[in-house]
Amino acid sequence: MSKIFVDACLGKETPYTPVWMMRQAGRYLPEYMAVRKEAGNFLNLCHNPKAAAEVTIQPLDIVGVDAAILFSDILVIPDEMGMDLSFLQGEGPKFSDPITCDEDIDRLIGGDEAASKLTYVFDTIKLLRKRLDERGDEIALIGFTGAPWTLATYMIEGQGTKTYNICKKMMYSNPDLLHKILKKVTEVVKLYMEKQIQAGIDVVQIFDSWASAIETDKYDEFSWSYMVEIAEYLKEKYPEIPIIMFPKGISAFYDKVYGNFDVFGVDWATPMALAKEKLGDKYVLQGNMEPCRLYSKEMITESVENIQKVMGSKRHIFNLGHGILPDVPVENAKHFVSECQRVSGK
Amino acid sequence: MSKIFVDACLGKETPYTPVWMMRQAGRYLPEYMAVRKEAGNFLNLCHNPKAAAEVTIQPLDIVGVDAAILFSDILVIPDEMGMDLSFLQGEGPKFSDPITCDEDIDRLIGGDEAASKLTYVFDTIKLLRKRLDERGDEIALIGFTGAPWTLATYMIEGQGTKTYNICKKMMYSNPDLLHKILKKVTEVVKLYMEKQIQAGIDVVQIFDSWASAIETDKYDEFSWSYMVEIAEYLKEKYPEIPIIMFPKGISAFYDKVYGNFDVFGVDWATPMALAKEKLGDKYVLQGNMEPCRLYSKEMITESVENIQKVMGSKRHIFNLGHGILPDVPVENAKHFVSECQRVSGK
Repeated sequence: MSKIFVDACLGKETPYTPVWMMRQAGRYLPEYMAVRKEAGNFLNLCHNPKAAAEVTIQPLDIVGVDAAILFSDILVIPDEMGMDLSFLQGEGPKFSDPITCDEDIDRLIGGDEAASKLTYVFDTIKLLRKRLDERGDEIALIGFTGAPWTLATYMIEGQGTKTYNICKKMMYSNPDLLHKILKKVTEVVKLYMEKQIQAGIDVVQIFDSWASAIETDKYDEFSWSYMVEIAEYLKEKYPEIPIIMFPKGISAFYDKVYGNFDVFGVDWATPMALAKEKLGDKYVLQGNMEPCRLYSKEMITESVENIQKVMGSKRHIFNLGHGILPDVPVENAKHFVSECQRVSGK
Repeated sequence: MSKIFVDACLGKETPYTPVWMMRQAGRYLPEYMAVRKEAGNFLNLCHNPKAAAEVTIQPLDIVGVDAAILFSDILVIPDEMGMDLSFLQGEGPKFSDPITCDEDIDRLIGGDEAASKLTYVFDTIKLLRKRLDERGDEIALIGFTGAPWTLATYMIEGQGTKTYNICKKMMYSNPDLLHKILKKVTEVVKLYMEKQIQAGIDVVQIFDSWASAIETDKYDEFSWSYMVEIAEYLKEKYPEIPIIMFPKGISAFYDKVYGNFDVFGVDWATPMALAKEKLGDKYVLQGNMEPCRLYSKEMITESVENIQKVMGSKRHIFNLGHGILPDVPVENAKHFVSECQRVSGK
């Protein structure tokens, strides 16, 4: 029996519109915080397949979403390429030795050697595959990666950034160096996602969280083309696995979107009607409630009804337009899920 | 004799397309750093008319821009409303006591009482008016304010924010409270800008730096309508003073833009061709080179030529699509200005 979520991704008719939330396995859930506390810290949790599988499953039972997304972090990739990731309390991710030159890139572990080091991710997926199959509720498992550009921003800046000035200086004054990083990361990501598929995921999502840092005229060159290359590599080998692309905050690029993938994730800043007009014929659309609406049940209902009116249960997956924030009440997250189910007739 | 920059803002034909840069009086200039060091810190510089006038004038001579923009900070407004602004070294602005409830708003100084406290700004303008008139080079002086929404984000969060979760929680779960803040700020801004005009500015710019934090469906309600209210108040009394609106990062709202003002500032994330299609008939357009292109002369030339090709010297003012960054070489800023002048025939 095929899974409803997978069918929806592939554009097939489904009995209702499935719903999930970005960061649904996260800090707004007390049950997540308990497992994380036991694991010691965020990175330990990513490295511990049993605990990571546990938090992946939690939102299925607690908020009732229709798909599970692997619990992990996009930065495990550069970490296993040799970049020494750490998360300092309250400060976000840090790489101690950011990339500044050719030699820094040459020193990075590449290709299959790097991808093969991510065993804890594949072990988490295998555990999840088993647990999900045992449940028998036909819940799909989404695997994911960061887009090469988004990963590169951390590898070059050494941490999160407001201005992206170091990587943009590289983009404009030494584009070859940036392309060299992006190519090396792309090769690892292809193999990493292939191994995620082999371990048992049903769907791939590629997050380009920092898409909006690139001007429209340069977005294809420095990010989208690499995402498409990954999608095409996977589609050729695993045509039955749907691929979701999520480039955040770049609606001015929608006219130029191309590539062999299935679902386009719409961020909250882009009106769904605009996305439907530009992309709805070519791709299934996912999204896009503004996550801060989760602070108010009334505002959740307003948005879910508006999105449903635009999409009309056709070629659509409900989601937020970005990750859920830690201070959202759990009952409001439940309200979002149940409102999506109500309007789409589940 | 009318000023070319003012004529360009009003949509009149001019012998060339004028150019200026957001944050042109700023940290990339060693001459600015010297004055700032002498003033002690950033806020002292804002409070010192002689020093503020000095740094306002600097880019005219050093990089050759066609307009001067008053040196000040948008947060002097909430500071004089009683909010106790400070700038901690390397941390950005802080308000010690953010607004959380009705009583906090009632305690704020409002209307003419708050606007009248900004004497150091009006004194800076008077000094500049005198110095610019003495130069006899018909350089226009731009005054400015932050949009009520952008000011409110700092007043509610107490500082800069990545997620805006405190103000967005207010937006969605207690919109009346947010509107109460926005109304009180709007009243002060109207009078503040009127006093800037009376002191001698030639042009008004309203910066909505955090426009992109609001979803398109709510942008008019929580920000644009207040900006339009300010513009209409000023236009009724001072129809000859051009008004520039700069809502950053909200191109999906361009279809809904309305109001009585002259120039629309286009941010770097919005292709100029898109802005022209949506808004070029109604408003003069300002912008929009991606400021990080200032890291490379070649990339400056590419962008300036592209923008010129789209706008064709008609109803256009050259500018960056956001502020210049501190680590830009001065000679590249000069290259930007001279390339704009070259392509537009100055």
